[in-house]
Order: sequence, then structure tokens, then C-alpha cells
Amino acid sequence: MSGFRFFRRTPKLIQEHPRVCTALLLTGISGGSLLAFTEHKAYAHSNEGDSKKKKVVVLGTGWAGTSFLKNLNHPSYEIHVVSPRNYFAFTPLLPSVTVGTVEARSVVEPIRNITKNKPFDTQFREAECLRIDAENKKVLCRSSQDTNLGGEEHFEVDYDYLIIALGARSNTFNTPGVEENCHFLKEVEDAQRIRRTVVDCFERASIPSISDEERKRLLHFVIVGGGPTGVEFAAELHDFVTDDLASLYPLLKDHVQITLLEAADHILNMFDKRITTFAEQKFRRDGINLKTGSMVTKVTDKAITTKERATGEIKSTEYGMIVWSTGIGTRPVITNFMKEIGQGNRRALATDEWLRVEGHENVYAMGDCATINQRSVMADITEIFSKADKNKTGKLTVNDFKDVIKDIFERYPQVEIHMKRQQLKGFNALLQNSQTSSKKEVIDIEVFKNALSEVDTQMKNLPATAQVAAQQGVYLAKCFNNMEECEKNPEGPLRFRGTGNHRFHPFRYRHLGQFAPLGGEQTAAQLPGDWVSIGYSSQWLWYSVYASKQMSWRTRMLVVSDWGRRFIFGRDSSRI
Amino acid sequence: MSGFRFFRRTPKLIQEHPRVCTALLLTGISGGSLLAFTEHKAYAHSNEGDSKKKKVVVLGTGWAGTSFLKNLNHPSYEIHVVSPRNYFAFTPLLPSVTVGTVEARSVVEPIRNITKNKPFDTQFREAECLRIDAENKKVLCRSSQDTNLGGEEHFEVDYDYLIIALGARSNTFNTPGVEENCHFLKEVEDAQRIRRTVVDCFERASIPSISDEERKRLLHFVIVGGGPTGVEFAAELHDFVTDDLASLYPLLKDHVQITLLEAADHILNMFDKRITTFAEQKFRRDGINLKTGSMVTKVTDKAITTKERATGEIKSTEYGMIVWSTGIGTRPVITNFMKEIGQGNRRALATDEWLRVEGHENVYAMGDCATINQRSVMADITEIFSKADKNKTGKLTVNDFKDVIKDIFERYPQVEIHMKRQQLKGFNALLQNSQTSSKKEVIDIEVFKNALSEVDTQMKNLPATAQVAAQQGVYLAKCFNNMEECEKNPEGPLRFRGTGNHRFHPFRYRHLGQFAPLGGEQTAAQLPGDWVSIGYSSQWLWYSVYASKQMSWRTRMLVVSDWGRRFIFGRDSSRI
Repeated sequence: MSGFRFFRRTPKLIQEHPRVCTALLLTGISGGSLLAFTEHKAYAHSNEGDSKKKKVVVLGTGWAGTSFLKNLNHPSYEIHVVSPRNYFAFTPLLPSVTVGTVEARSVVEPIRNITKNKPFDTQFREAECLRIDAENKKVLCRSSQDTNLGGEEHFEVDYDYLIIALGARSNTFNTPGVEENCHFLKEVEDAQRIRRTVVDCFERASIPSISDEERKRLLHFVIVGGGPTGVEFAAELHDFVTDDLASLYPLLKDHVQITLLEAADHILNMFDKRITTFAEQKFRRDGINLKTGSMVTKVTDKAITTKERATGEIKSTEYGMIVWSTGIGTRPVITNFMKEIGQGNRRALATDEWLRVEGHENVYAMGDCATINQRSVMADITEIFSKADKNKTGKLTVNDFKDVIKDIFERYPQVEIHMKRQQLKGFNALLQNSQTSSKKEVIDIEVFKNALSEVDTQMKNLPATAQVAAQQGVYLAKCFNNMEECEKNPEGPLRFRGTGNHRFHPFRYRHLGQFAPLGGEQTAAQLPGDWVSIGYSSQWLWYSVYASKQMSWRTRMLVVSDWGRRFIFGRDSSRI
Repeated sequence: MSGFRFFRRTPKLIQEHPRVCTALLLTGISGGSLLAFTEHKAYAHSNEGDSKKKKVVVLGTGWAGTSFLKNLNHPSYEIHVVSPRNYFAFTPLLPSVTVGTVEARSVVEPIRNITKNKPFDTQFREAECLRIDAENKKVLCRSSQDTNLGGEEHFEVDYDYLIIALGARSNTFNTPGVEENCHFLKEVEDAQRIRRTVVDCFERASIPSISDEERKRLLHFVIVGGGPTGVEFAAELHDFVTDDLASLYPLLKDHVQITLLEAADHILNMFDKRITTFAEQKFRRDGINLKTGSMVTKVTDKAITTKERATGEIKSTEYGMIVWSTGIGTRPVITNFMKEIGQGNRRALATDEWLRVEGHENVYAMGDCATINQRSVMADITEIFSKADKNKTGKLTVNDFKDVIKDIFERYPQVEIHMKRQQLKGFNALLQNSQTSSKKEVIDIEVFKNALSEVDTQMKNLPATAQVAAQQGVYLAKCFNNMEECEKNPEGPLRFRGTGNHRFHPFRYRHLGQFAPLGGEQTAAQLPGDWVSIGYSSQWLWYSVYASKQMSWRTRMLVVSDWGRRFIFGRDSSRI
């Protein structure tokens, strides 16, 4: 391995010290140096190429950023990564980390491990991005190490391409007291803090001078938000209490209460109705206090105030710990950047279908901090018609669309979705469908508009999930890998508003399904094609999917051995 | 398992609700209730016995306290454990935790896991002991959970027996700036902090705006103290840097410097000279900057000042991180207790050879917070002589000692050590040895005194190691297990100053050897009988001893799998 490394480093050595290399060549000129000289020329050439290397700055090391780094393979880039965390975290396992089903370190992989064997140079900076200056093509950063090493350090990084993958923050909806008193569940440190707090609550409740009332307060765990994260955390916490803590704290187990608050009428409302019902029934059976239609209006250090949507009743309950998991908000650096580029009224950065920030050719955005602004068919309807109308007659037969139909489907995926919904077979059927009066062979622009008028209602924003972010990272890496090639031979669809073709295919999300672990070795799975599976078998599917999706063999081994350890020995309740 | 639990809990239920039980009995009186009634009587009897249960308070969950709890097996106690940590930590592996060779969670075991299957009731309180009130037989405690759960909570616990096993704190020798700027290595949290700081230093040094000078400062790691802990940490850090970080931070590896400062002339000076020499040579070969005879006089936030013992030269060096590991000091609660009981001028609590705090029958102390005050032979010389002189003639033949010789050896182990040193075979030889003038068969008190005059120089304090503490814990548990039995039939040696025998054998330390891991898979081992082994084979011995000494199968499996993980994947450099 170290021999291999030497060979990999030799070219770099020659690039960095060309004079030394020349001297070496001269001393060895008498024999066999012709080859060496040729090689040197080759390196000198690649050195020249170096100065042309495009500098790509990647902000963030979440799902989007890390998938990009992992799949980028072209040596023509110089990569600079800026992130306050020097690792990638497998966030879907964070609820498991909160109670020690899986250890924190088993779900993280250092970014440098991911990039170290890549054919391009990578510089990682553990720093926070404070400002994106798209005008001068640079980002302003601040070091994020403990300040006792010498205060904050500010620096700038310039770029040729910028990839914004900063994710989102937890959304408190400006509810008073939430920021100060609630736990969130977005980072590994959050999960570690929650774990310590749960044990703290139990230890505190074991102190003999604590009153029974106070004991009940300390052991009241509240989860706000009935989305997948909140539900999974509630399930994990319930398992931790019943499987492990009940036998270690036998006198306390009857005081424990877990409350799940959801403002809507049902939990898991992005899932199939069958899953929602099963989850609600299971939680009620498990003794989890499930309260839907309940909005949080205020949180103090010991009490949480809720308002019932139906009755308007306001109620205050004491708690030991609250985990807040109601959705995502925009990070300040993104908000500021949006203001600067005229997107001030949005929730996330708008990009086109190629993930480029609108109006900024070299700035890309993906993951939770961005949304794709799918172009509507109606905005381009005249151009689409005229591209098909090669003879400029103003009238088209159905056959005239043949040449552009593939491009229309690729450029405007809503057309295909609409056709599927309406159960129409082929584009002709769509056009014929609208001609209610009589079937004509020839179509004019008005008929065409009429046929496509409802298509754009099928445009939807992608969900803010790891799956979307990861697919975007992979997509963008492929684009960057094929950049040179695609400049010459564009692979994308026809430009309806311009000439020629787009460089790349637009990003297309493929939904692979979604899991909702419900505790007690049961998981609900919603797979593509309305497939629903609930129970123990889905739990095993969950195990295998989550193991396979790990970023490295190291974390895969660690996560699987953590699961095994939990089966054999249970979860650890040490307060560290 | 849960069925088994039910049976275990039934007696308790009956004890707690005797009236309910009586009612149950009355409703079932018609058939088969005779058996039930008999059982109830039996429980009522054991309930009566309960009120006689002795309340034992154990302060601390380190090696001594945990060994005691693990080995106590007698149901006649009610145990109350008070410790700020709800787990036992396998401290000899802390240097490995600092760099991730072993994970923090692999070296800890919750105290509740250790006590849950014991035949006695245990209450654990996660709290700090603030004051020991031996007069009123109680201890004052303060809760040690995060204060956001409702401030500090003070409470008292009374006892019949008190076992003080509070350990020690790091000793800064009042060197200015040490407390504020240095890392210690006594707790699991210390090791976790060190790990984060090492990664912080590397990340900080990767920031582009940092000057080369500052980069050199950040990557200068200083270890103060050349004892086993300091040496092992230096070795682990060196391995972490060369094995793992060098390939991840290729541009930084030449800036790293590790300095080991020792005030004495050699490191590891409690070890054999061969080990010391080997360790010093290995460290110099590894590029560790080893400075002996160098005392630290001051530490500021960025620089450490040293004074050379030989030349008096004072030098200030900049550093990125300091780990302070120079020895142990007394905890404030122990200092205060010593003042109260008239031991104010001591470094640790003085106990007798039965680990009882001098003058306090029911208070025991062990581990790093205590030292055994071995009784000198010369203090009891007259009594020893008169016990042997059954006929009160004032003269003794050598044979007269036959009856008391075993008791003398047990009560005063220094006699045997002295004889071994002088290579004397048998007590007779010792007595004869002193009679320089002529060999007599009859000995008077003066000759006896003369013969034993040098014996007491062999009295030595036990080292402050995990091994001593663990053996003391096991010893004291055995005493408590046999308490009732030994009250009736004392097993200890003759009371020379009183009548009859001591209840128990006195504590005797058995040194099983000591390890000093030196990095690069090499360990020095010093085994009993001056056996010295250095190198790769000792490393494997070290692995097997440390695996076998784990408190539970869980931690044993975790530690071994951590070692395996490190072999395959290296250490993790994520900053969590």
C-alpha cells in the first residue's frame, strides 16, 4: 500500500520540484533516461493543465455534498470543501443514536476518508460559511474549532463553481421558548445531548429528596411533531424505557410518560392512510400519549403550553425533556444570499432543473436548502408549438410532434405524470382528449394550449429528504464528470426557447420508498407503486436498506455490530 | 426471564402490602391456602429481618467501589451507592480512548447493571458527596445532573457502615495556569475532550489563513509527566498521528511535534531500568521530543514555561494542547474529613490493615483516597514478646516463638519481607543473625528488640493503582460476606495488644505486574519476580490481560471488537 502511495505521489513531487527532477535527469542521462525524460514532459504538460483546473467550492457535508464528493471522479477539478463538521453523518439513524441503539461514532465518516483516494486534489476546511458573494465569486468563512485555540479565524475562498449544500435548520415557527428549552434532532451532537438528558432525567428522579410530583415531571418526555423523525424518536424512546431502563430503574418505570404532539389531525400524514392508522393504534397500545390537533404556543423551562385546534382549549403541562421536530427552516446564510440575488420572498433557493441557482450560471444548490423551479409548459407553449411546426404553417398534424415528443417529456416531466393520472396512452391521446367537439387531424395553437392547460398542476416540490439530496449529489457529480464531453456533445433535451440542446439531462428524482420505524422491531414501509408493508418483515428490510446505504464499509460494519450488540446486551445507560 | 422476574418480585410485593396479601388469603381460604399462609408467615419473618439489615453506603464507583459491589454477595445488607458517575470506567484504557483506539462507551459499565442481579437491595444516587459526618453517621450529597432539570438538589444519607472509595484528583502542584489551560486524564470525559482537541488542532491548522508559525504552535502537543499514563498517552498520540492523521492531513504531518516533559531524570522510573532505557530509546527513535529533568513553572493559554533542573535555564515554548499527568492529589471532601478526624496533616486517609479508618470502627476507606498505616513491629515489641513468653519468665527459647510465629508474619508482613531481603531462612535465623557476639539459646527482650530493629524499614505504602484498589474492593467484600460468620469464629491473627484474635485476616496486596504500552504494537511488561518482557509479545499479553479484566462480557466484547476495528479501518478522526 505504501509502495502504491509512493507511485501516486511521484508525479506530484515532480510537479512541485521540476528543477530537482531536471537535475536528477541530468545525473542519470547516460542510461535509460529517455523514458524518464518523456515522462517528465508528460508531467510538465499535466502541470500546465493544472493551472486550468477549475476550482469547485462545496459548502456542506450532508447528504447532497457528500454524495457529490463521493461520485465525482474527474481529475480536472480542484475541490475545496467548507463545512463546520469534518464528517458526514448518516442522519436517518439519528433517532437510534438518541437512545444508544446505534452509537454516534458508527454513523459518521470523516470527509477526508471519502476524498483521500480521489483523482483530484481536495482541501477540507472545518469552517462555517458566513456569506456567499456570487458577484465576486467567493465565499466568506469562519473557523469552527473551539475558540480557546486562538479565537475565530475569518478567511475567503474563491471559486469557479460553487455548490451550495448547506441543508436547513430546525423550524421553531417563532414559538416563544422553543430555542432555549427544547432539544432538536438534526446533528449528531443533538442526539448525544438527548441521550445524556434522558439518563439525567432518570438519575435525577432517583434522588431521594425529589417529590413524587417532581419525579413525574422529570419523567415526562414530550415530542413535538408527528413526522417520521418525531415518530421514530418516540418509538425508540419507548423501547429504551421498556427494554432497558425499566429493569435498571424498577421504582421509576410507572412514572414515565411519553407524549407525542402533532398539530395536524394525524401523525405521519405524508404516508399512506393504512400506515398512519397502524402507527396511531400501535402507539396507543404502547401507552404513548398521542395528541393530534394540538399546537404548541409557548415553552418555559418546566412547562409546555398547547392549544387544541378543535376546542381552542389552552393547557399547560410540566415536562422533563422536549424534543422539537416539526420541520425545517432556512439557514441565515441562505436567507441573506437569497435577498442579494432577488429571491428574498422564498423559503429555499430556487434552481432550474439542472440544479443551477436561477440567474447564476456557476452556482449550484441542492438538498434541503434548495428547491427546483420546474418550468411550466404554459410558459413555453408557443415555443414548443413553433419547434414542432418546422414548416411554419401554424397548423400541425399529430405526426408532426413525433420529433419533439421525447424532448417535451424530458423537459416537462409534468406532462407524463398528467398522462399517467388521466390514464392516457401516448401524446396523441392527450391531444385528442381535449378536442371535445370533433376529432380533427390538424391542430392549431389554441387546441394545443387547451390540451396542455391542466398539465402544470402536476408540478410538485420534492420533499426535503436524504433520498432527494443524495440523488441530487450523484446527479451533479455525473454532470461534473461529463462536463467536457457534454460541452461538445450535449446530451440534454432540445432547447425550446433557444437553439441546440441542453448540455445535460435535467435532474429527475426517483422515489425508492420511505420507512417509518415504529418500535418493538416493527417498521412501516411505503414502497413505490403504493406498496405498503407493516411489521417485523419490514423491520428486516429496514435493517438491510440502512446497512447498504452506509457511506463506507467501516460504518456499515459498525452499525451492524451495534444492532447485534443491542440484541445481545441491550442499550447502555451510562451518562457519557 | 420476565417470569423469573415476577417470582423474584413477589416477596417484595407481599412485604410492601401485607394487608392486601391478607385479604387475598381470606378470599382464597377455602382451598389450598395453608401453603399460602405458611409462605406469608415466612415473608413476614424475612420482613422482620429486613429491619435489621445493615445500611452500607458506598461512596464512589471507581475500581475499589465497583470491585466491592461486584463481589458482595450477602443478602443481609442494604446498599446505597453515591457517585457523580452512574457507571464504572475501565481507567487503564483511557489513554486509548483519547485517540479512538478504543471507544469511550466500550470502557464503561453502568453500576445498575453490576448490581441488578445481586441478592441485596441497591439504591444508586448520581450525586457528589459533599461532606462526611462520621459523628452522626451520615453523608451530605448534592445531585450531579445538569442543573437545567431544576437546580441543585441536596440530600443526606445515613449509614451503619460507610465505605469511602472516592479516588483522587489530578495534582497540579499549584503550578499557575495548569487548572485553566491543561487537559487531565482521569475521567472518560477528559479523554473525550482530548480527542476532540487533537482533531480541533489539526482542523485549525488546515485553515488557509493560519500562518506557518501558528500552524507549528497548534500541532505542538505537550505531555507533562513521564509516568505510565503520560507515556502511554504520548505513544497513543504518536501512533494516531503516524498511522491515521498523516494520510488524512498530508500537508500538516511535518509540522507535528510531541513533547514529553518529566521532572525526574528518567521516564517510567517506577519500572525496571531496562524498561526505562528501552522506552526512552524508542521514543527518541519515533521522534518524540523527550525532555527529562525539566520542571513546569507556569502555563499560559498559548505557552508553557519550563525550568531545567540541572542548568536552571528557563524556557518558554508555544503549544497547541497540554495533557497534565503528574500524579494525584487529595479531593476536597477527603481533606475536610481528615481535618475533622485529626488527620489534617496527611495526603490520604489513614486506615488500619483491615481498611478501617483509624478510630472509626464503621468507616472503611480504600483506593487512591486512602493509605494503609502498617503497624510497626517496634511499637508492639513488648506485647509480642510477652505473648510468646507464656510462663512470664522474661526469657524465651527460640522454640517458644513457634506458637506465635504465624501470627507475627501475618500481622507484620514487613518481617517476612525483611527476611527475604536478608536471605534468612526461618525466624530462628533472624534471631540468631542479630546475636553477633555468641549464639545463645535463650533470648531476652533486648536481644529480641535488637533482632527486629531493622524490620520496620521494609514498610512501604502501596502504589495508587487500579490493581491495589480492585484488590481492596474484593477483600472488603469478602469481609462483609463473612461478617456474621467471623464475628463468631474470628479468622485473623492473634491480637498482640488485646485478647483473642482479629475478626479477619488483614489486607495483603499481591502485585501481579505492570504494563507500559509504548506504541507501535510494543509494550513493556514487568511481572512479579523481576520478570521483564518488552516488545510485540508483551503487547499480546497486554491485550489478553486487559480483555480478561473487563467488568462485564459486554465491555469485553466491545473492547475486543474496537481493537479489531482499529486493525482493519484505523482510528476515526470525526470531530464528535
